[in-house]
Amino acid sequence: MGSTYHVAVVGATGAVGEQMIRTLEERNFPISRLTLMASKRSSGKKVLFKGEEITVIEAKEEHFKDVDIALFSAGGTVSKSLAPHAVKHGAVVIDNTSAYRMDPNVPLVVPEVNEQDLMKHQGIIANPNCSTIQMVVALEPIRKKFGLKRVITSTYQAVSGAGTRAVDEMYMQSKAMLEGEKPEANILPVKNDNKHYPIAFNAIPQIDVFQDNGFTFEEMKMINETRKIMHMPKLKVGATCVRIPVVRGHSESIYFEIEQSNVTAEDIRTVLADAPGITLVDRPSEQLYPLPLDATGQRDVFVGRLRNDLDDEFGFHMWVVSDNLLKGAAWNSVQIAESLRKLELV
Amino acid sequence: MGSTYHVAVVGATGAVGEQMIRTLEERNFPISRLTLMASKRSSGKKVLFKGEEITVIEAKEEHFKDVDIALFSAGGTVSKSLAPHAVKHGAVVIDNTSAYRMDPNVPLVVPEVNEQDLMKHQGIIANPNCSTIQMVVALEPIRKKFGLKRVITSTYQAVSGAGTRAVDEMYMQSKAMLEGEKPEANILPVKNDNKHYPIAFNAIPQIDVFQDNGFTFEEMKMINETRKIMHMPKLKVGATCVRIPVVRGHSESIYFEIEQSNVTAEDIRTVLADAPGITLVDRPSEQLYPLPLDATGQRDVFVGRLRNDLDDEFGFHMWVVSDNLLKGAAWNSVQIAESLRKLELV
Repeated sequence: MGSTYHVAVVGATGAVGEQMIRTLEERNFPISRLTLMASKRSSGKKVLFKGEEITVIEAKEEHFKDVDIALFSAGGTVSKSLAPHAVKHGAVVIDNTSAYRMDPNVPLVVPEVNEQDLMKHQGIIANPNCSTIQMVVALEPIRKKFGLKRVITSTYQAVSGAGTRAVDEMYMQSKAMLEGEKPEANILPVKNDNKHYPIAFNAIPQIDVFQDNGFTFEEMKMINETRKIMHMPKLKVGATCVRIPVVRGHSESIYFEIEQSNVTAEDIRTVLADAPGITLVDRPSEQLYPLPLDATGQRDVFVGRLRNDLDDEFGFHMWVVSDNLLKGAAWNSVQIAESLRKLELV
Repeated sequence: MGSTYHVAVVGATGAVGEQMIRTLEERNFPISRLTLMASKRSSGKKVLFKGEEITVIEAKEEHFKDVDIALFSAGGTVSKSLAPHAVKHGAVVIDNTSAYRMDPNVPLVVPEVNEQDLMKHQGIIANPNCSTIQMVVALEPIRKKFGLKRVITSTYQAVSGAGTRAVDEMYMQSKAMLEGEKPEANILPVKNDNKHYPIAFNAIPQIDVFQDNGFTFEEMKMINETRKIMHMPKLKVGATCVRIPVVRGHSESIYFEIEQSNVTAEDIRTVLADAPGITLVDRPSEQLYPLPLDATGQRDVFVGRLRNDLDDEFGFHMWVVSDNLLKGAAWNSVQIAESLRKLELV
């Protein structure tokens, strides 16, 4: 393949698709041609890329001819039906849905953690779940240096993770409630589930559908994907995933236990300060810690509030924030494309 | 003392004071006279109690003459300066500030957990911190039946915990942001601290000031007060306290480990369903779990999302929500007054 690429974005008009296009532009990814695909409903829309207007076309098998890299973010059903065809046409697929993540033949990649897993790809590479990505970016440098025994996380997830319409609904609910009216709810927690609750001025402890074990699918993603990405199939991971009224930027309260003894919070801060993709924001005396409003539009994972547990020598707490649409989705996908180039896999 | 009481509310015009007056009314507490006190600035205001207008007077030592029960919620400084005088005049003080909570001579009471500690009071009884109260109400029946080894909690705390003006500021910030304007911030996370951040569409991992160990004072309150109330000075407790854009109702993601083996989530649900002060809302298949919007205005502690950890036989996760102004403050204070009557301590 050449040194410039025919890139396709599938789901180009969605919250993540838009950010993929912006990120390809900002990173100046070497693109010879950009094909933008979406559902029939969205086809015909015009999108600006580097000053040029591109017309969105309907996502169809035949449009993957000559595509080198296809970024998918149009839901699991679309990925399942179209990604194999894209691969058949010679494209490498970077899939941002949960369709292939746990497939043993599909690498699940966060470049800061397991870039080398890309070497084994067979056409499809899965982009992990947003809440998983930022957690493993923060945990990996700690694991490398001090070992890692267990993780217990509670998330504070932004509404944009459920799409643009969920954000619009939150705005409408907020307006209604500020005027003393009853908010309407038709989208969250899960569009196709039975009940819907307002997210404005609320906190909903359900993201994605419930499993028989009492955990939600989002929580199981955090547990299973973390184990796969970190190559630690036995790592103890507990997760509670909660949606809060934030537009962009997932936050996570993470408790973790390391293997090595006599490690201080300062030792861990030193490691994190030098780790790839991380910005350490951890000066309590100056009230500096990561905030979702500050992380919006940023590619890094922000870590702070690092402190030793008061009872467990091996236990630590931290607060990790990142833009769910960027590192949690679009940026990690484009970063995978950059890694594929670097490793000469594309 | 008689069977009706001269009750004083100090801080009567604040968010908690207002709820104290409403709760005394709703519970039909036997009041012969109600004295409402506040700062000089708020004195002269009129407040309705059982259809009668009461004029708020300035909180002063001499106004505690003949008071039987004094409910304090006007900040730690006011409690420190006036509570001893109220006691000297013969009143029993129920103090909702952090001023006396860790004083070994002051019982720190949640009636569902340690009502009997009231027997040892010496004039002042402390009402615990809001985030602590709802957690111990949920943990105590579990401890009693199965033993308790450790607790790790992450909170999702409502803005009304920081007072009415913080809520007003959140509303103003929300309006500004909905109109695409930059929000102003002058109150949260801590009124008198140096930096202020918007809470609208944000999450702030700081409640109260930072301690040298990297924990905030709010987090230390949860740790130390839980140990004191539950009479478990060695209980392992870890806490991360976070403010989110919710008006009323604190939520908590709580991981806990019990001592007994072979216990199922259903066993714990059975115990919680019968426990005092708890409403179990835990039917994942029907998407039923506690929500802060539903808890607003309710006196109970709502528990749901109970499930066994997938790695630790002794570990469980749950989601606990309660109205921070009611069970977290006003209702627990009035409930202490009711317990004092029941135990013939007043």
